[in-house]
Amino acid sequence: MPGPLGRGAPVEASGGLWITFEGGDGSGKTTQAGLLQEWLENAGRTVVRTREPGGTAVGRSIREIVLHHKASGDGADGADIGARAEALLFAADRAHHVDALVRPALERGEVVIQDRYLDSSVAYQGTGRVLDPDEIRELSLWATEGALPSLTVLLDIDAASARARLDADDKPFDRLESQQDAFHTRVREAFLALAEAEPERFVVVDATLPPEEIAARVRARVAALIG
Amino acid sequence: MPGPLGRGAPVEASGGLWITFEGGDGSGKTTQAGLLQEWLENAGRTVVRTREPGGTAVGRSIREIVLHHKASGDGADGADIGARAEALLFAADRAHHVDALVRPALERGEVVIQDRYLDSSVAYQGTGRVLDPDEIRELSLWATEGALPSLTVLLDIDAASARARLDADDKPFDRLESQQDAFHTRVREAFLALAEAEPERFVVVDATLPPEEIAARVRARVAALIG
Repeated sequence: MPGPLGRGAPVEASGGLWITFEGGDGSGKTTQAGLLQEWLENAGRTVVRTREPGGTAVGRSIREIVLHHKASGDGADGADIGARAEALLFAADRAHHVDALVRPALERGEVVIQDRYLDSSVAYQGTGRVLDPDEIRELSLWATEGALPSLTVLLDIDAASARARLDADDKPFDRLESQQDAFHTRVREAFLALAEAEPERFVVVDATLPPEEIAARVRARVAALIG
Repeated sequence: MPGPLGRGAPVEASGGLWITFEGGDGSGKTTQAGLLQEWLENAGRTVVRTREPGGTAVGRSIREIVLHHKASGDGADGADIGARAEALLFAADRAHHVDALVRPALERGEVVIQDRYLDSSVAYQGTGRVLDPDEIRELSLWATEGALPSLTVLLDIDAASARARLDADDKPFDRLESQQDAFHTRVREAFLALAEAEPERFVVVDATLPPEEIAARVRARVAALIG
């Protein structure tokens, strides 16, 4: 790696549409995905909501390994999962998820709205840790035979605003969520660089705007795609 | 892929020694690994026996996903795990296994005797299925930062002999074991080609010989390594 699969292509089949939401924790991805789903369903479209990791039963098993294996007590060989093993597990989840869920839904003409995809892997694993972002991207594209969404919504938010929201939620942080603000900032910069490199695929929205205003901007871009 | 990690290197640290056993199901890997362990322990060496997948707690979770997820009922998204997802899961197990178990044992000066490694991935996933063997090899070497054993024992057996042994055991076949004889033959040819390409690392032994005769040939090669 990197090799011949360095460039992916949008997966478009039978009128299906694949939209991914990206952004740091606290950026409002779940809220916005829900508002977009509601709007599309009111327009008569069938919508599949999914996520990575965890969008399939296999994926949920993989997610369990990545997020909680150490915390649950790993026995004599209790070493934490390293960066490469984690990247490979996420890539395995991705391969299965695209095969088992995304492509079949698109072939049925449905809209797939997905929380996190390739760009999260590159931003989180590639930038925040020890791995080469190009290798992470290449790994994901190998896993999926180059599958990319038609539209990626990046909900852009600064570290302080995101943390304020997460603290308000008062949820226990899991292994990824407990990273520090400095990490959030590096991830944010990585997301913005990815969006800049692929302006056709990305729409970047200020996640500190009122939710309805964000939703309107997302709808405008989706409306242009579905004609 | 393939990329700069196409060539691996033996991992040798502090007097440790890493030996892998390869061969089709029914070739006698477990018996021979046990005989070698006994001989090394009688010579005063500390031996760690391990396997892939499943040598660590994380690996056992991964093995469970690969071998049994479909059989256990996968819910609405019951699609079988595809070739790429499976390859990535095995690579994730490998990354963790080498990090958490193999390297630490070698650094303690111990002998690691391992049932299946890189060569099984290339032979089974690369040759028997739809993936490029070079990509499988590259994936494994990326996962482990190029780690190769000092010695690989290939127990070579034809399909009919192997099946006769497995039938005698009367064990239920799991997903990989239930493959047909023609598949065994293709895998066998792949193993032999790998051994031919790396004669320094491999010793090939006829697995239909009496077990003690096989063990003697393996010991001769190991004795040369430990001096």
